Amino acid sequence: MPPRPLDDVRVLDLGQVYNGPYCGMLLAAQGADVIKIEPPGGEIVRRAAISPGGASYSFLMLNAGKRGMTLDLKDPRGREIFLRLVEHADVVLENFRDASVLASLDLAYDVLAARNPRVILASGRGYRNGSVYEQFGAMDFTVQAISGHMSITGFPDQPPVKAGATLCDMLGSVHLFGAILLALRERERTGRGRAVEMPMLDATFPALMAYSSPYLEKGLDVGRTGNRHSVPGSSPYGIYPTSDGHWIAIMCVTDAHWRQFCTAIGDDVLLADETLAKGPQRAARRDEIDARVRDWSCALGRQTAIAQLSGAGIPCAPVRTLGEAVDDPYNEEQGLLRRVTYEGWGEVRVLGSPIQLRDPGSTAAELPPLAPPPKLGEHARAILAELLGMGDAEIDPLQKDGVV
Amino acid sequence: MPPRPLDDVRVLDLGQVYNGPYCGMLLAAQGADVIKIEPPGGEIVRRAAISPGGASYSFLMLNAGKRGMTLDLKDPRGREIFLRLVEHADVVLENFRDASVLASLDLAYDVLAARNPRVILASGRGYRNGSVYEQFGAMDFTVQAISGHMSITGFPDQPPVKAGATLCDMLGSVHLFGAILLALRERERTGRGRAVEMPMLDATFPALMAYSSPYLEKGLDVGRTGNRHSVPGSSPYGIYPTSDGHWIAIMCVTDAHWRQFCTAIGDDVLLADETLAKGPQRAARRDEIDARVRDWSCALGRQTAIAQLSGAGIPCAPVRTLGEAVDDPYNEEQGLLRRVTYEGWGEVRVLGSPIQLRDPGSTAAELPPLAPPPKLGEHARAILAELLGMGDAEIDPLQKDGVV
Repeated sequence: MPPRPLDDVRVLDLGQVYNGPYCGMLLAAQGADVIKIEPPGGEIVRRAAISPGGASYSFLMLNAGKRGMTLDLKDPRGREIFLRLVEHADVVLENFRDASVLASLDLAYDVLAARNPRVILASGRGYRNGSVYEQFGAMDFTVQAISGHMSITGFPDQPPVKAGATLCDMLGSVHLFGAILLALRERERTGRGRAVEMPMLDATFPALMAYSSPYLEKGLDVGRTGNRHSVPGSSPYGIYPTSDGHWIAIMCVTDAHWRQFCTAIGDDVLLADETLAKGPQRAARRDEIDARVRDWSCALGRQTAIAQLSGAGIPCAPVRTLGEAVDDPYNEEQGLLRRVTYEGWGEVRVLGSPIQLRDPGSTAAELPPLAPPPKLGEHARAILAELLGMGDAEIDPLQKDGVV
Repeated sequence: MPPRPLDDVRVLDLGQVYNGPYCGMLLAAQGADVIKIEPPGGEIVRRAAISPGGASYSFLMLNAGKRGMTLDLKDPRGREIFLRLVEHADVVLENFRDASVLASLDLAYDVLAARNPRVILASGRGYRNGSVYEQFGAMDFTVQAISGHMSITGFPDQPPVKAGATLCDMLGSVHLFGAILLALRERERTGRGRAVEMPMLDATFPALMAYSSPYLEKGLDVGRTGNRHSVPGSSPYGIYPTSDGHWIAIMCVTDAHWRQFCTAIGDDVLLADETLAKGPQRAARRDEIDARVRDWSCALGRQTAIAQLSGAGIPCAPVRTLGEAVDDPYNEEQGLLRRVTYEGWGEVRVLGSPIQLRDPGSTAAELPPLAPPPKLGEHARAILAELLGMGDAEIDPLQKDGVV
């Protein structure tokens, strides 16, 4: 197997739900030895439903490519084993409720660093430790609320609504991934690790851009604008129904797009209308233009409409259903979905990392084999033997007592 | 100034709009020397509006901390200067429409690597080069459509709707940031750079998790579920109106949360109802529970309601307006918004990086000074002198001809 960028990195992954585990998955995909450490009985998402093989489907999706063991950190023996593992680790990854959880286990960063000054403690959070929100429990849904994201999502005459995307979990997670790589790079120079923290509130703030920019510029809080731009600068921009019950998204940004658009839909009247030649003119009359675009789109099937526009260089796309988006062969070709086998489930499709360092010229993912998600406690014995030199005589009583 | 993780890295940033420039901003915030190279006349977002100082507010938000110059890559002299700059660069960052743009300038990866085998070409894209979508123009809005994200956002009885967040731009950008750091790490071992590509479609696929998981598990495409969970497993979960015209988000995940919730709102009837003790029971009767929660929330101001619930440990949050979210002092305390001065605009607030390697115990951002966004062509002369040893006699005619 060719070398991979993180094949010299070991991670103790205490992550739970989406935010921590996705980051662990990104690390594992680059060759890191990611050891998922679950509490006795398993991570909350593993236990989310009565499931084949004792693991929910969501758990399977985020945890392939990791090794796994359980550890009772509240038991002094479990805690000591954890600290001994820290001596062999580069990164400890966690996304507990807040910083007080590790502190209450006497496993705050200074305790870890006393055992291994090179270790990096990477913490996914809702809010920055030390801020006014530090003890405010956070889930993706509640951070979508407090961050302002709900207030800019949906239609003006409807209540605020979440993005279906778990955008806070995921943006938090991948920013944390970046922070870990930076800390590893810094460590090469300093020889020392550090604690890094990535709050979801912080990670999602830049994504308000389209709305925060006009607000910061001129105090304009436009609220929800449906599928229209926050501050319309041209038209058409939106989604339009097609004859087969679907929708298409169209976005004419430039005046050139507009002329190409009029030509593509064969509307000579619009094309000739000098009073619509400039973006701001079209923005001011967007209701009228939208009605006319709908007249065109409603007469065509989605595929035909998209073919007409994309052939003419107009930014557009089908609004695909979830099922269409997931079943697209693109996902398996590009390694975004990968097949593994898990006892009880049989063959399942799980997430692969979208970050792939490919050889030049490759047009499809060429990925090393993916290990299935760990069964509960599956690798405990192997890990304890390999890293801590523990034999069965030592491990057996710990397993009997539920410590590992 | 203390060392920073990327202070030995130079980036030629050809980025435009949000996706490329945000990645460049993340790099600059870690100490990289990011040289923003704009076409003659400036990047499209700089020119987005008739603006003070010749730069739109959106441009200012994403480009502080970078140096800037213009370069006409279509002019052979401009192209040659670019290649000479590549000899002094670690990363070339771009998010042109697709791979054909650099190829048409004869600046594909192999050409750059011939000048500097250590250089990393980092490309933000809509879709993977070589895939069926490679020539399909992409903007955040159209990728929200094709990715399935629109179809899972909004209310079931309303059309699909985009997330207000530019989630495709931002998720693509920060995954690309991670890919660049991985390529830098790999280069330390191999001595060679590589091309890395980060499609927005790929970067947003994992964020479908809450909906793609039940679909992959059992073919369940539930469509849009408003503010409810994709597959309700408990209740309450949603947003609820308060007496002051606001909303609060509440998410009772566990049965313990439910009991704490009933106690916090003083509803002994609900608390005593054994038929609601378990999550699935509450999920099945969520309309009834939601009505009762609304009765409670409607009688209280938002702040009072949040205080009652958060004091009891229930995951909850105010649904803040955009203005509330942006004006929160948290943003400046944590370095998410930073103040710079730009001629014509005066003092403005621009984005800071949410990734910060802080010293332990620090409770607020302690950031190095931030240079304002570059004026059009501001650093051309300094950069050409410093990196290429060019003097005024060489630069003057190039400037006169609009090459730099």
